[in-house]
Amino acid sequence: MWGGRFAAQPSDIMQSINASIDIDRRMAVQDIAGSRAHADMLAECAIITEEDNEAIQAGLDQVLEEVKSGAFPYRVELEDIHMNVEARLKEIIGEPAGRLHTARSRNDQVVTDFRLWTRGALTEAQSGLLELQKTLISRAGEHTDTVMPGFTHLQTAQPVTLGHHLLAYVEMAERDRGRMRDAAVRLNESPLGAAALAGTGFPVDRDMTAEALGFDRPMANSLDAVSARDFALEALAALSIAATHLSRLAEELVLWTSAQFGFATLSDAWSTGSSIMPQKRNPDAAELIRAKAALIAGQFASLQGAVKALPLAYAKDLQDDKRLTFEAFDTFGLCVKAMAGMIDTVAFNKDRMRDAAAKGFSTATDLADYLVRELKMPFRDAHHVTGRIVAMAESEGKDLSELPLQSMQTVEPRLTEDVFSVLSVEASAASRQSYGGTSPVRVSEQVQSWKTRLGLEAGTPE
Amino acid sequence: MWGGRFAAQPSDIMQSINASIDIDRRMAVQDIAGSRAHADMLAECAIITEEDNEAIQAGLDQVLEEVKSGAFPYRVELEDIHMNVEARLKEIIGEPAGRLHTARSRNDQVVTDFRLWTRGALTEAQSGLLELQKTLISRAGEHTDTVMPGFTHLQTAQPVTLGHHLLAYVEMAERDRGRMRDAAVRLNESPLGAAALAGTGFPVDRDMTAEALGFDRPMANSLDAVSARDFALEALAALSIAATHLSRLAEELVLWTSAQFGFATLSDAWSTGSSIMPQKRNPDAAELIRAKAALIAGQFASLQGAVKALPLAYAKDLQDDKRLTFEAFDTFGLCVKAMAGMIDTVAFNKDRMRDAAAKGFSTATDLADYLVRELKMPFRDAHHVTGRIVAMAESEGKDLSELPLQSMQTVEPRLTEDVFSVLSVEASAASRQSYGGTSPVRVSEQVQSWKTRLGLEAGTPE
Amino acid sequence: MWGGRFAAQPSDIMQSINASIDIDRRMAVQDIAGSRAHADMLAECAIITEEDNEAIQAGLDQVLEEVKSGAFPYRVELEDIHMNVEARLKEIIGEPAGRLHTARSRNDQVVTDFRLWTRGALTEAQSGLLELQKTLISRAGEHTDTVMPGFTHLQTAQPVTLGHHLLAYVEMAERDRGRMRDAAVRLNESPLGAAALAGTGFPVDRDMTAEALGFDRPMANSLDAVSARDFALEALAALSIAATHLSRLAEELVLWTSAQFGFATLSDAWSTGSSIMPQKRNPDAAELIRAKAALIAGQFASLQGAVKALPLAYAKDLQDDKRLTFEAFDTFGLCVKAMAGMIDTVAFNKDRMRDAAAKGFSTATDLADYLVRELKMPFRDAHHVTGRIVAMAESEGKDLSELPLQSMQTVEPRLTEDVFSVLSVEASAASRQSYGGTSPVRVSEQVQSWKTRLGLEAGTPE
Amino acid sequence: MWGGRFAAQPSDIMQSINASIDIDRRMAVQDIAGSRAHADMLAECAIITEEDNEAIQAGLDQVLEEVKSGAFPYRVELEDIHMNVEARLKEIIGEPAGRLHTARSRNDQVVTDFRLWTRGALTEAQSGLLELQKTLISRAGEHTDTVMPGFTHLQTAQPVTLGHHLLAYVEMAERDRGRMRDAAVRLNESPLGAAALAGTGFPVDRDMTAEALGFDRPMANSLDAVSARDFALEALAALSIAATHLSRLAEELVLWTSAQFGFATLSDAWSTGSSIMPQKRNPDAAELIRAKAALIAGQFASLQGAVKALPLAYAKDLQDDKRLTFEAFDTFGLCVKAMAGMIDTVAFNKDRMRDAAAKGFSTATDLADYLVRELKMPFRDAHHVTGRIVAMAESEGKDLSELPLQSMQTVEPRLTEDVFSVLSVEASAASRQSYGGTSPVRVSEQVQSWKTRLGLEAGTPE
Repeated sequence: MWGGRFAAQPSDIMQSINASIDIDRRMAVQDIAGSRAHADMLAECAIITEEDNEAIQAGLDQVLEEVKSGAFPYRVELEDIHMNVEARLKEIIGEPAGRLHTARSRNDQVVTDFRLWTRGALTEAQSGLLELQKTLISRAGEHTDTVMPGFTHLQTAQPVTLGHHLLAYVEMAERDRGRMRDAAVRLNESPLGAAALAGTGFPVDRDMTAEALGFDRPMANSLDAVSARDFALEALAALSIAATHLSRLAEELVLWTSAQFGFATLSDAWSTGSSIMPQKRNPDAAELIRAKAALIAGQFASLQGAVKALPLAYAKDLQDDKRLTFEAFDTFGLCVKAMAGMIDTVAFNKDRMRDAAAKGFSTATDLADYLVRELKMPFRDAHHVTGRIVAMAESEGKDLSELPLQSMQTVEPRLTEDVFSVLSVEASAASRQSYGGTSPVRVSEQVQSWKTRLGLEAGTPE
Repeated sequence: MWGGRFAAQPSDIMQSINASIDIDRRMAVQDIAGSRAHADMLAECAIITEEDNEAIQAGLDQVLEEVKSGAFPYRVELEDIHMNVEARLKEIIGEPAGRLHTARSRNDQVVTDFRLWTRGALTEAQSGLLELQKTLISRAGEHTDTVMPGFTHLQTAQPVTLGHHLLAYVEMAERDRGRMRDAAVRLNESPLGAAALAGTGFPVDRDMTAEALGFDRPMANSLDAVSARDFALEALAALSIAATHLSRLAEELVLWTSAQFGFATLSDAWSTGSSIMPQKRNPDAAELIRAKAALIAGQFASLQGAVKALPLAYAKDLQDDKRLTFEAFDTFGLCVKAMAGMIDTVAFNKDRMRDAAAKGFSTATDLADYLVRELKMPFRDAHHVTGRIVAMAESEGKDLSELPLQSMQTVEPRLTEDVFSVLSVEASAASRQSYGGTSPVRVSEQVQSWKTRLGLEAGTPE
Repeated sequence: MWGGRFAAQPSDIMQSINASIDIDRRMAVQDIAGSRAHADMLAECAIITEEDNEAIQAGLDQVLEEVKSGAFPYRVELEDIHMNVEARLKEIIGEPAGRLHTARSRNDQVVTDFRLWTRGALTEAQSGLLELQKTLISRAGEHTDTVMPGFTHLQTAQPVTLGHHLLAYVEMAERDRGRMRDAAVRLNESPLGAAALAGTGFPVDRDMTAEALGFDRPMANSLDAVSARDFALEALAALSIAATHLSRLAEELVLWTSAQFGFATLSDAWSTGSSIMPQKRNPDAAELIRAKAALIAGQFASLQGAVKALPLAYAKDLQDDKRLTFEAFDTFGLCVKAMAGMIDTVAFNKDRMRDAAAKGFSTATDLADYLVRELKMPFRDAHHVTGRIVAMAESEGKDLSELPLQSMQTVEPRLTEDVFSVLSVEASAASRQSYGGTSPVRVSEQVQSWKTRLGLEAGTPE
Repeated sequence: MWGGRFAAQPSDIMQSINASIDIDRRMAVQDIAGSRAHADMLAECAIITEEDNEAIQAGLDQVLEEVKSGAFPYRVELEDIHMNVEARLKEIIGEPAGRLHTARSRNDQVVTDFRLWTRGALTEAQSGLLELQKTLISRAGEHTDTVMPGFTHLQTAQPVTLGHHLLAYVEMAERDRGRMRDAAVRLNESPLGAAALAGTGFPVDRDMTAEALGFDRPMANSLDAVSARDFALEALAALSIAATHLSRLAEELVLWTSAQFGFATLSDAWSTGSSIMPQKRNPDAAELIRAKAALIAGQFASLQGAVKALPLAYAKDLQDDKRLTFEAFDTFGLCVKAMAGMIDTVAFNKDRMRDAAAKGFSTATDLADYLVRELKMPFRDAHHVTGRIVAMAESEGKDLSELPLQSMQTVEPRLTEDVFSVLSVEASAASRQSYGGTSPVRVSEQVQSWKTRLGLEAGTPE
C-alpha cells in the first residue's frame, strides 16, 4: 500500500490503533461522490482519457450500489474507506482505477468527504430542531393561557403561561438552527485539489469539482485545506450549545413529572418502569438527554484538545475528528427526536400548575408595581412596603390575595379594595403585556408569528 | 436590600461566594448606558416624570465620570455593579433614583449589560485578529518564493513556500472573524424589558431601548431573555476555536526556533532568557499561547457545564458566566497581540529552510507526477516506481536529485535527463500552480488579493 | 535579569502575558522556606560559607516578615515571586544573596514551592470536608427516623430516612478525603536539587533539603522533577470529584427548598432575596456550588490540555498550573464551607417529607417482598401482581394502604389483613435492616460509628 | 418487563436511546458472577431453597458458557445485559429464575457489575504500564551514557543522557500505576444488597456476597451504593493523567523522528507510509496517542458533567458511565501497548543526538558553575560573566569549547586552560552526579534499582 518501501508489516496493535474503516465507512457515499467529481474533472482537463473516466464512473456506480445494498466488502487491512473504495474499483475495472488518484491525495480526499458529511449532518440536525420547534409551537398554542409558576432559583417568582414557557425553547432552537446554518455556510468550501498539502502541478480545475459537489468555491490555500478542522469544531460547538438547551428542557420534564411538581405526565411510550418498583414512571429519555449534553460537550473538548497544538499540515491526531463528530451528530439526532416525542405526548396538569402558581406570594411584584403605578411610590419604596405585607401574610399563613385589606392598610393606609384586582395569578399573567411578555394575548401573537415564520399554516413556508 | 424580610445577615462565607462586584464592575459603563436608555424610555412612556428622568440622567452622568476617573466607590456589601450604581445614584440625586428600577429587574439588567459587553469584546477580538492578519500578509509578501519543507506528520512531505504557509493562518483567522461576527449579530437583541422573567405590566417601549443601545430588536420571549446564555457560549466557542489556531501557529514558532529546525529567530522583545543558562532564547509567549488555548477551551467547558441542566428562568449558577467570559476575552486579546508581535519581528532563516526542504526526498511526488504525465503511468504504478527509486537513493545516501540517471533507469528504463527538471525544490514549488497551490505566482496573487480585501493598499478598506 | 545578552527590552505585551507575580506571590512563604532549606544545605555541604548562610537566613527572616506584614514590595518587572524574593534579599544583604541560587534553578525552585503549596492546600481541603462531615453527621443524628421519599429518576421510589440520606454524603466525603490524602502522599517528594533539568555538579545533599521541607524523599529523576505536573492534575481531579458531590447535595437543597418540595428552608444567613420579588428566599449558595463544580472540572481540563503534549523538560505552558490550581482550591474551600453552613442551619420540614414519602405507592416494593416472603412467590411474579394492585389503586385514586383488602384479593386471593402491616412508610423504612439499609436502627448505628471514627465523642479522634 | 402497568409500548426512538445492551454486554461475565454470589447467599440465608439455588447455579453455568462461546443470544428489546441474562436463565431453568432477583435491584446489580469490571480494567491498565516500564528500563540500560540535548522550552539547555530521559517516563508510569492502585482499592467495596436504594427487608448477608466477589467489605450506605460514580471518575482521571504522560512521550517521538531532529527512526512495524509521498515514514501511532489523551480527558469531562448535579439516588443520566469508561480503558490499553511497541523497536541515532547536544552553548551552565566553584564568584555574577562569553562565542560563530582562552580572558582574566575540562558535553553530563542527576553513573544506578524493584532480574518480583 505504501509503495513497497517497508520491509516489515505493521504490528497488530499498530493496525488496531490505526485502522479507521469501522468509523469512516460512513463516508462511503461522500467518498464516491468526491471521486466521481474528481474523475470527471480529470477527463475534462485531459489529465486522464475520456475512456478511463467512463470506466471509473461505471465502476463507481457499481461500488455505490454495493455500498447501498450492504454487499460492499469492507476490509480492515485496507485501513480506511478511501483505500477500500479504490481497491474495490480496481477489482472491478482494473488499470483505470490506478489513474483516479492522479492530482489527489488522501489528505484532500478525506477532508472533502468529511466536509460533505458534516454539511449533510448539519442540515439533518436543523430539520430535527425544526420538527421540535413545530411540536413546541403546537403545544404552546394549546396553552397560551395555562398559568403556571415562573421560577427563578427554582423559587416561585411570578405567574407565567405555559405557552410562553414552551416558546422560550422555540427561540433557543431558532438560534441553534442559525448557528448550524452559519457553520454549514462557512464550511462549504472545497478542499479537493489541495492534494497532499501543496496543491498540484496537474492542470486541474478546482472550480469544477467544487461546483459538482455543491461547494460554494474551492478553498484558497492548500495547506489550510488539508489541516483545518475548525469546521468540525464549529459544528460540535453548535451541537453542544443546542444540546445544552435540550438538556435544560429535559431537566424541566424531570422536575415537572416528579410527584412533588406533578405538572405533567409522560406518555407510556416515553416512560420506563422499574424492575422492583412497579409504580414507577421514569423519565429515562429526559435524563439521557441531560447526560448526552455532557457527552457532546466532552466531544468538543476532545477534538479541541487533539487539534490544539498541531503544526501544519495534516497529522494523524486528526483521525478521531470523524469518530467524535459522527457520535455527536448521532447522539444529537436521537436527543432531538426523543425530545419532540416527549413534548408531543406529555400531558400537562393545568390544575396543579395553576395551584402552584397561586402559592408562594407570586403576585408580590404585581402589588409593588401597583403601588408604583397607583400611589406613585418610587419602585424601591414600593418594594419595601410589599416586603412588609408579604411578611405579614406569611406569618398569618395566608396568601396575598387572602390577606384582609385592613391588615395591608396597617402597612400602607392608602390601599383600597382595588388592590385585589392585581393579586390573582390570572390578572398577573394577563397584565404582562409588554412585547415578549407572558400575557396570553402576547403568547397567542407569538404562536401565530412562529406558525407563519415556519410555514405551519397557510402562510409561506420558511 | 431585599425588602427587609430577612431577620439575619448573610454569613461571611455567603457574602464571599455571592459577591460579584470584583468581576462585574467591568460592566459599569454598560450598566450606566442601559440605565440611561431605560430612564429615557420610562419618561417617554410617561412611566416616570421628565423631571425624574433629568435628575437620573444628570446623576448617571456624574456616576459615569466617577467610574472613568477611578473615583467611584465600589462597595462589596452592595454585591454587584448594578446595586452599586443605583446606590451611588441615590446618594447623588435622592428619591428619583428609586424610580429608575421601575419595570426592570436585575435579571434583564444584568444580561443587557453582559450582551453589550460581549458585543464590544467580540468587535475588539476581531480587530486583534485583523491586525494579526495584516502582519501575516505583510510577512507572507516578503516570502512568496522562500522555499521551506511542507510537513505532514512532521515528516518532510513536499516543498512549500513560507508565504503560502503564513497565508494559511490568514484563512483561519478570516473564518475566526466570521464566527465572531456571526456571534455578534446573533446576540444583538435586547433583553431589556423582560423584567424578572415575565415581562412587565408597565406600558414600556422595548423597541426604544433596544434602538438606543444599538440592538437590532427586542428579544421576543422574556423567559428566554433572562435565561439564555448561548450567546456567551457561542462567543467562548468562537474564541476557543480561534485560540486553537493561534496555538497551532505558536507550536510552529516553538519548533522553528529550536536549534534543530533553526528556521527562525525570535526578536529580543519576544524572547526570554534563563536564570541558569545564559545562552537560552526562550519562546515563552508562544508557549503561553499554546497553554491559553487550553485555558479558553476549559472556560467554554465550565460554562457549558454550569448551564447544562438549569430549568428556566434565571439561576445563580449563571453568575460565573461573566468571570469566564471576561477572562477568556482578556486572554485571547493578549494572545492575539503577542502573536502579531512575534510574527512581525521574527527573523526567518531562508537558507536553513531551503536546505531542509531539499532533504528527505521531498520531491518524490514530483517524480511520481512526472511519471504519470510523461510516461502515462497510472498514478498507483508511478507511486510504486517512485518508491523503489527513493529506496535506492536512501541506500546510497543520496538525495533524489543526486542519484545518477542510470540508477533510476534500472527501475524505469524510459526515464531521461529531463527528469531532473522536476527534482529541485524550487521547480517543485513552482510547479504547484493549481488554485490555492504553493507556487510563488499563486502566493503572490493571494497576497495581493488579501491586501485588497482587507484594504491594506490603495483599494477600499473592508 | 538574563545575563545581559539581550539587546532589546521585552515588549509590553510580552511582559503582560509573561509576568506571573500576581499569581505566584501566594507562594512567597513556600519560596522562602525552600530558600532557607537550600542555603542551610549549601552551607552544610561547604558549597557556600557559614557566614554567607547566616546572612542569607537573617535576610530571609526579614523578607518573610515583610511578606507577612504586607510590606513586601512586589515588582511586576521582576516577573515572578522567586526573582522578587531574591532581588529583595540582595537589597537587604548584598553580595551573599548572589550565592543563594548556586546549584539551583528556577525550574526546581518553582516546582518545590508549588508542591509545598499544594500539599498544604490538600490538607486544608480535607479539613473543610471533615467539618462538613461533622455537620452532616450531627444533622443525621437528629433525623435517624425522619421518613422522606427516596427517589430514583426523581420519582418516588421507596421511603428512606433523612439521616440515611445525609450519611450518604458523609461516605462520599470520606472517599474524597481519601483521594486528597493519596494525592498528598504521592506528591510529597522533593524536586529541589534537580536544578534546571539535569541535576547539578555541586556536591549537594538532596536528602537534607527534602527532610527540612517535610518531603518524604528527593525525586529520583531530575528531568521528571522539573517537568511533571501530574501532582497538580491529581489534586485538581480529586477536587473536581469532590466538588461533584457538593454539587449533587446542592442540587438537592435547591429542590428541597422549592415550594413544590417544601422539604427544607434555608436560614436567612444562607438565602438571598430578590430586587423585584420580595417574597423570594433564593438558595444562591447552593446554585453557586453547582456552578463551581463545573468550574473546577474545567480547570482540570485546562491543565490537562496545557500539559498534554509537552516534550520534556520545563516549558512555559506550565505557568498556568498555579493559577488554575490556586483558583480551584480557593473555589473548593469556599464551596465546602458554604455547604457546611447551609446544612448546619437548614430547617427540615418533617411533615412535608413524611407526607411526600407516603405518596406515589412508595411501599409497592414492600408489598412485592411480602408476596415473596409470605406466599413464596417468585420475585418476578410478585412484581407482576404488585403492578396490578398498584394500577387498581391508581385508578381508584387511592394509596396502597387505603385500598380495601377485597380489592387486592381480586388480584391475589391469598392476601390477608396482615398485608397492611407492611404498607406504611414507617414500617417500610423500619424493615430495611440489611447492613447499609435505611432503617432507623441501622442509621443510628452508622451515626455512632462515624462519631467514633471521626473522634466526635469520647472515642479516639481520627 | 415493568409489571404490565403500561398500556403502550415504548417508541422506537425511546428504545434506541434507552437500550444499553450493545455497551453493557461486556459485563456479562461480571453479571453472572454477581448473580452466582447472590444466589448462593440467598440459599445460605434460607431466602430461597437449596434446590432453587442449584438450578440457578447450573443455569448460570450454561449462560456463562454461551457467553464465552459466543452463542449467547443478546436481544436489544431486553434493554440491558442484566435482563438478557435473567431472561435466558428463565428459558433454561424456568421458575427458579424468577427467584434470583429477590432482595436485589438492577440498581445495585449494575453497579456491582461495573465495579467488578472497572477493578479488572484497572489491573490490566497497570499491567500495560508495567510492560511499558520494563521496555523503557531496558532501552535506558542500553543508553546510560548516550548524550543528547536536554531541552527547556524546546531550546537546548544542558546535555543529558538518553537513559536518564527514558527513565523520567518510568517515574511517571510508576505514579500512574499508584493512582490506579489507589483507585482500585477505594472502589473495592460491594454495593450488592443495597437493592434499589434503601437496602432490603430480607435477612441477607452482604459480607458473604462481598467476600465471594473479592470485595473488601460491603458499602455502608445503600443510597451511596447505588448513586456514587466517583469510582469511575477516579479511574477516568487516573487514565487521563497517565494518557497525558504517554502523549508527552509520543510528542517526543514525533519530534525525534522528524528530519530536523533525526534522533530516532521508528521500525517499519510502527510506521506508516503515504499514498502520494513514497519517502514518508509517518509516526502515526505516536500522533494517535497524542489525540487519545485528549479523548480520554474528554471522557472524564463528559462523565463529570453528567453526574454533576444529580440528586440521589440512581438516575438514568448515569447510563453512559459504562460507555465512557469502557472506551477510555480500551483506548488507553491500545495506547500503552503501542507505546511499548514503538519504544522497544525505535532505533536511536547516537551521533545525531551527541552532535545536537554539543551545539547551542549547552555547557554554558557548566562554565558558570566552574566560575562559582573555582573563582568563588557569586552565582549571579558568574551567570553574568558567562552570558558575556556566550555572546562573544556567538558573534564569532564558535561554540564555547572552540573559543580561545584569550577571548574568554578579556571577559574574566582569571580563567585558565583548566576551563576547557568542563566545556565538553561528556564532561558536562558526567559531572551532574547529584542524586537524580543525569550522569551515567547515576543513571546506571537507577536502571539497576528499577530492575530490582520491578523484579526484572534475579531480585524478587514486585
